[in-house]
Amino acid sequence: MFKAVINVNYKPSVLDPQAEAIHKALGRLGDDNIATVMVGKYFELTLNAPTIEAANDQVERICDQLLANVNMETYRFTVTPLQGATA
Amino acid sequence: MFKAVINVNYKPSVLDPQAEAIHKALGRLGDDNIATVMVGKYFELTLNAPTIEAANDQVERICDQLLANVNMETYRFTVTPLQGATA
Repeated sequence: MFKAVINVNYKPSVLDPQAEAIHKALGRLGDDNIATVMVGKYFELTLNAPTIEAANDQVERICDQLLANVNMETYRFTVTPLQGATA
Repeated sequence: MFKAVINVNYKPSVLDPQAEAIHKALGRLGDDNIATVMVGKYFELTLNAPTIEAANDQVERICDQLLANVNMETYRFTVTPLQGATA
């Protein structure tokens, strides 16, 4: 049993109005010392796989197929064995 | 200059239809070995603060005020000094 933690965010060249809105809202709340704001999605999967290599390959395919729009977004992930579980 | 990495996700008691939809879509794609799916939001802020304690306090307040709905969501964050920057 493995746990995959996946972060998906816009490529730096893609305009992100949500991050811009948060940055402005922070300014209105008095937090004018914020230099940059980045917003992304975050996924946690637990999966049964024979080896960590197999889990890595599967998670990469899932990101490409389903979780990220690779035209506009980039992703990164880590896969770790789940404590106290048998594969 | 500090970097804050913030994760916001639903409390376990809150139904998450988006995670449920992803879980079902994975099944249709043939990934039937996925045990659980969790979806959350993820933020990165860079901020100027005199000390890491001040940055921690400010980020906690920002999460409570703006980034998380504390009725339905929980958050966790880490604050680290930004490499190569002067505070």
